[in-house]
Amino acid sequence: MVDVAVVGCGYTKFDEHWNRSLRDLSTEAGMLAIKDASIDGKDIQALYVGNMSAGRFIGQEHLGALAADQAGLIPIPATRCEAACASGALAFRKAYMGIKSGEYDMVMAAGSEKMTDVKGTDAVATLMGAGDQEWESAIGLTFVGLYALMARRHMIQYGTTREQLAMVSVNNHRNALHNERAQFRYEITVDKVLKSPLIADPLRMLDCSPITDGAAAVVLVSDKLAGRFQNPVWILGSGQASDTVALHDRQSLTEAMATRVAAKKAYEQSGLTPQTVDIAEVHDCFSINEIMSIEDLGFCRKGEGGKFVEAGKIGRDGEKPVNTTGGLKAIGHPIGATGIRQVCDITRQVRGDYGKLQVHGVKTGLASNIGGTGATSIVHILGSERPGR
Amino acid sequence: MVDVAVVGCGYTKFDEHWNRSLRDLSTEAGMLAIKDASIDGKDIQALYVGNMSAGRFIGQEHLGALAADQAGLIPIPATRCEAACASGALAFRKAYMGIKSGEYDMVMAAGSEKMTDVKGTDAVATLMGAGDQEWESAIGLTFVGLYALMARRHMIQYGTTREQLAMVSVNNHRNALHNERAQFRYEITVDKVLKSPLIADPLRMLDCSPITDGAAAVVLVSDKLAGRFQNPVWILGSGQASDTVALHDRQSLTEAMATRVAAKKAYEQSGLTPQTVDIAEVHDCFSINEIMSIEDLGFCRKGEGGKFVEAGKIGRDGEKPVNTTGGLKAIGHPIGATGIRQVCDITRQVRGDYGKLQVHGVKTGLASNIGGTGATSIVHILGSERPGR
Repeated sequence: MVDVAVVGCGYTKFDEHWNRSLRDLSTEAGMLAIKDASIDGKDIQALYVGNMSAGRFIGQEHLGALAADQAGLIPIPATRCEAACASGALAFRKAYMGIKSGEYDMVMAAGSEKMTDVKGTDAVATLMGAGDQEWESAIGLTFVGLYALMARRHMIQYGTTREQLAMVSVNNHRNALHNERAQFRYEITVDKVLKSPLIADPLRMLDCSPITDGAAAVVLVSDKLAGRFQNPVWILGSGQASDTVALHDRQSLTEAMATRVAAKKAYEQSGLTPQTVDIAEVHDCFSINEIMSIEDLGFCRKGEGGKFVEAGKIGRDGEKPVNTTGGLKAIGHPIGATGIRQVCDITRQVRGDYGKLQVHGVKTGLASNIGGTGATSIVHILGSERPGR
Repeated sequence: MVDVAVVGCGYTKFDEHWNRSLRDLSTEAGMLAIKDASIDGKDIQALYVGNMSAGRFIGQEHLGALAADQAGLIPIPATRCEAACASGALAFRKAYMGIKSGEYDMVMAAGSEKMTDVKGTDAVATLMGAGDQEWESAIGLTFVGLYALMARRHMIQYGTTREQLAMVSVNNHRNALHNERAQFRYEITVDKVLKSPLIADPLRMLDCSPITDGAAAVVLVSDKLAGRFQNPVWILGSGQASDTVALHDRQSLTEAMATRVAAKKAYEQSGLTPQTVDIAEVHDCFSINEIMSIEDLGFCRKGEGGKFVEAGKIGRDGEKPVNTTGGLKAIGHPIGATGIRQVCDITRQVRGDYGKLQVHGVKTGLASNIGGTGATSIVHILGSERPGR
């Protein structure tokens, strides 16, 4: 069995990049990862690109070849992967499996999205491509609307409070203060969240991750090559699962079944548990999703996510630091890039070289990337020790 | 090393399906493959879906989860792959690598496209997402325009005639006569091609594959499971390569470098040569591409493709039968489905159970699927004997 490690990572500033194209951002991210790994780009044998909707955002599909072309990596194979907001983690998982298959020893996985070239309303419509076109988009549902339904149900069923939802955003903004690549680097308060404009009751503007441009990239190698690198961060577990695309078809509005299935697989492979994994990057596209994810990943029992947040357990010095660099809320959420950005942040934390962003003593970390309202869920666990040692 | 075999396949009628959705077509194709393999759908461990532009054609991304949902296969992992017109072969290759990685023993690879829900002009614009948005689409180039440049250059450089181009379409239409799932089931003549409306000089309407709705699916298994099936068709070689997305950046307009690189890999893996492989499915999106592909795959020398066609060598009884069931021209070209449809046709020919479509004595076959004007090229070789025996 081949083991796989991440040996380089980087991401661009996540922002509204009015003057930069998807190509520019992707190239910058790729160069950052190559530089971080101290490799020659010519050693990369295949490229995996996560992107959700460049066809609609900028009129460009065929993003695998475009990235290989722009990076001067022709003629290596290039694959674009899409699973809505989980496109980044999907590209990462396919890159991992590409090495495990014995086909490659060094590959790059990247993710990107250029969202600000269209009007905000068009962006919202485009994002609904992640939902069920026939049963959700066509009747006018938006993503914040769908997550609002989940939030309201969670409040009714488990007594989760409006304030607890706000505390998710407060924690993420605080964590982003020292993240120079974050879109929003300022602290907010619970009061500020509660007074921000209502978007879809009960969710307010400061519960929502923003529209963002950005790209991220990582370099993966097989165990055969890992010895050449100083601080390989090993992939200890990888799980992926699917659920119904339409929310109304699910057994529960307050639980992401696919996350539970994907996490179970990743925990089993890694030999770790929700208790023993040190930190986590979770998919806070809306504040409610961070609370649900904390539960679905097993950090607390179902229904207790709000209290877990309120007790400060997700803080950088808490029991289970979550989104230690700002999460989707404060770093921004360039759809296809997010899953790779999460892996970058876990990699740096595990390496222990993250400067002001460093959380003390991190040996293992989990990244949870969710597509749509949970129709795709992908969980990776990374750590400093090679699997099975 | 794990070996991988195709044990079930099927595709829908390729047509303008005004009254059917992408879901319907995908589900039908999946059921056909499951029935052909005589398996229970519940045994499928992962799903790979090739699709180019559902986001723009029907407002729906997240097609992996959608297919798993519609097929009742939740919670298995589902991956959407995109490489423009090579999306189908890309999904097939990722499915193959998924099994080779040891992650799965039985997976489904499917491809689909629903192109007729938009106006023809919008379809043409959407298809340019396969080209270079900044350098080609933005200045008004269309795909037929790009291939017309290649055709004209091929005629000037190698003396390829207008009639030879027409003979490609004539052969494909003849081959589709007995293919009940083909969009066009009637013979045409060279004269008819030459009198069809000029689209982009020198290419005429009957040089062009049509706008089509359709879906195709195959079931793949590891060698561990292959013994359970009567006629496993083994994947002997798989190659993929990239080239510049923009045509003007290439060394040559008359050679697809990526096809040559991908084919070399597939030939080497399989131990076969252009001379010893029995039949081929090639990517005749426009007639010139079949001629170029015949050359790039090594069936004849560069520049001699036109003469090869004229001499009848690609006919069902010729030296190297090509597109024996009608090709993209006559079967139709629902973008994401085509690469999987090619594998279906090779599988049936190798199994020797293809009824009126059967070519005598086929033991091996090659499928060549091309994205854009050749920025992605993927070649698979399949055969009746397990690799290395």
